[in-house]
Amino acid sequence: MNLPLNRKRPVAELKELRALTGDANGAQRVAFTPVWLKAREFLRQKTEGLPLEIHNDAAGNTWFTLRGASEKSLLIGGHMDSVPDGGWLDGCLNVLAGVEILRRINTQYSGKPPVTVRLVDWCDEEGARFGKSLFGSSACSGNLDMNEARGLVDKQGIKLPDALKNVGIDFERVKESGKELKNAAAYLELHIEQGPVLLDLGLPLGAVLGTFGVERHAITFHGQAAHSGSTPMNRRKDAFLAAAKMSPEIYQIAARSGNGVCTIGSCLTKPGIVTSVVEECRITLDQRHLDPAKLATMLAEAKSASEKFAREGNVKVSWERLWQIASRPFNDELIALCDDAIRETCGQSHRLPSGPLHDAAEVASAGVPTVMMFVQSLHGISHNKIEDTKEEHLELCVTAFDKLAEKAMQWIARG
Amino acid sequence: MNLPLNRKRPVAELKELRALTGDANGAQRVAFTPVWLKAREFLRQKTEGLPLEIHNDAAGNTWFTLRGASEKSLLIGGHMDSVPDGGWLDGCLNVLAGVEILRRINTQYSGKPPVTVRLVDWCDEEGARFGKSLFGSSACSGNLDMNEARGLVDKQGIKLPDALKNVGIDFERVKESGKELKNAAAYLELHIEQGPVLLDLGLPLGAVLGTFGVERHAITFHGQAAHSGSTPMNRRKDAFLAAAKMSPEIYQIAARSGNGVCTIGSCLTKPGIVTSVVEECRITLDQRHLDPAKLATMLAEAKSASEKFAREGNVKVSWERLWQIASRPFNDELIALCDDAIRETCGQSHRLPSGPLHDAAEVASAGVPTVMMFVQSLHGISHNKIEDTKEEHLELCVTAFDKLAEKAMQWIARG
Repeated sequence: MNLPLNRKRPVAELKELRALTGDANGAQRVAFTPVWLKAREFLRQKTEGLPLEIHNDAAGNTWFTLRGASEKSLLIGGHMDSVPDGGWLDGCLNVLAGVEILRRINTQYSGKPPVTVRLVDWCDEEGARFGKSLFGSSACSGNLDMNEARGLVDKQGIKLPDALKNVGIDFERVKESGKELKNAAAYLELHIEQGPVLLDLGLPLGAVLGTFGVERHAITFHGQAAHSGSTPMNRRKDAFLAAAKMSPEIYQIAARSGNGVCTIGSCLTKPGIVTSVVEECRITLDQRHLDPAKLATMLAEAKSASEKFAREGNVKVSWERLWQIASRPFNDELIALCDDAIRETCGQSHRLPSGPLHDAAEVASAGVPTVMMFVQSLHGISHNKIEDTKEEHLELCVTAFDKLAEKAMQWIARG
Repeated sequence: MNLPLNRKRPVAELKELRALTGDANGAQRVAFTPVWLKAREFLRQKTEGLPLEIHNDAAGNTWFTLRGASEKSLLIGGHMDSVPDGGWLDGCLNVLAGVEILRRINTQYSGKPPVTVRLVDWCDEEGARFGKSLFGSSACSGNLDMNEARGLVDKQGIKLPDALKNVGIDFERVKESGKELKNAAAYLELHIEQGPVLLDLGLPLGAVLGTFGVERHAITFHGQAAHSGSTPMNRRKDAFLAAAKMSPEIYQIAARSGNGVCTIGSCLTKPGIVTSVVEECRITLDQRHLDPAKLATMLAEAKSASEKFAREGNVKVSWERLWQIASRPFNDELIALCDDAIRETCGQSHRLPSGPLHDAAEVASAGVPTVMMFVQSLHGISHNKIEDTKEEHLELCVTAFDKLAEKAMQWIARG
């Protein structure tokens, strides 16, 4: 069988891109910078020779459209931008695999596939400059908070709307990009896992169930400062003691939830001196789960535990919500197709949720049936120059993602 | 029985002193300030009419000497200086009770007691300006670290030696004050407890066993930063988890030690952001016990626990000693006399260690038999304008402390 897909070509192109847009510290394709524009130009060059319609939408997302027999569209997404000193795969693996799939489909169907196939390079997925990720896809999905985004400034004090104007984008019109989803019938995204689950299982590929919902809170325990020498242990109102008890507890809460995660990422103590019992202790708690009910349970259990520990320690506790986002479960039928594609490629699949957010979450929230495929990442680390994936796994993911694209295209064609 | 002791007079004089040297925020008798000099002048006036020799020693401590039949001396100590916004009793209760005792002894023995009796107003007990407490008494005991003290600066950048010169003290000669202890045969100090032990027991007075030895360390746990969304709980190297487990543990360690205390006063987390597992967590641990062996056990148990929690959490731990001081056990015979004096005054005594340091610790370290008496403090709070003691308890402590002085004088006379 002489398939037209070249599973090695995207890997070679990723190396080319790394040489062009990275340095000793990693990838430097930060959105709205000259290096990012160079990466996007590189992408356009790689699509030359294909019969594509190419345009930027109102939010700066670039669309590469291969017209098919039906206007119903299969979307494949990724992003060329990176964090500063980023990895060589995050975002661009998806895009360059997508280019290879467009080549294969164009060859196999002689320029006229059964449905329209569109590759999208989302604009500023990372949010590295303005601290707000998923810019292009959230504009397209309609979720972007215009008032919040209008006020965003970078470290130089430049406002997001002014930075956008510099690259030809009118901030007030970015949501017009939403019309791009009009005929979207399925959205596929390939990504490195950015975690150690597939590595631990020894599996190259996994089907993603959706992105986690997130509850993010600050929890403050209020006790009483007291002299560390003259205050007997049983007289203390030790805010740190109550906060500290939360740490082993969140591991229990996460375990009970199935596959949720809980993190205490910071702890501040006041007065914070060696000779005083802690009067006030503030910790942050980040909780994530794919199942909204289980996320709610994790939050309720954490609240209940904090109140118990406060009572035990004769201190008070208060909660402040910092941020929350709903989980975005992916499409069941597409998840099954993704599993099939992976099994056909390497024998065994694994279903897992995504802790980090991705553009796919925005597209799913706009009602487009969505699925992601993860490829194993070495070290379980991303957003870092040591981000890496075995070359054989990269080739496997190109193959499997192409099989998924074919299956999704047939699924759309079947209606 | 018409005793010459007036137990109400010191209380009236304390109120006078408060009006003279305090304001709405509390006592303002910070050492080396005009208000402190005013307080010392007030003290001199209160001793007028008594046949005392009065002089300042080389460290600025003021000595009021009532010559007795023997050169062997009973010392009674306190300090007129306060922290800024301090309490009305800390330090000066001791001194003004001492003045009243001098009056009683002078009257009772017609100016010639069996042994010499000396009241000392220690210079800069609090160390509020230069951050180093027990200045005058540590110069006198010989423990003062001259190199360290020579470099001390206040918030205005003024060096301790220069500030001392302004009040007529030659820094390089402060240890000559040590000769004042030549004939010292016993040292007594009365103080408010600054803790809640007597309050909880409903007792007005207690005999102090000594001042705690202190071990003060920073403990740093070294884990691995990891994404809070993509890192499964069982893959984490969570430095905060290991540090947090120390908090309940130190309560167990203190409980096993009998009456030691352990305090985690501060906690620092790195990177300290809501979306990352804590990579590095530094806590401070302050441990105090009267018994050197038990203090050593508490320290060993904390080290062992930290290593256990580090192993459990797959993180590393390192310890850094910040400070330590040996415990200063007081004289057994004087403790027994103190108990007797308290029981004769109010029926019941209680023995307790002192968490905070006091000038008495310096005198004890110089080999002078020493004891302290504590009077109950309301709220268990000191170094604050709300510091207070019931007036009836103040009167009881003057009476009991006077009985102790008489017993100690006879004890010295007996040899």
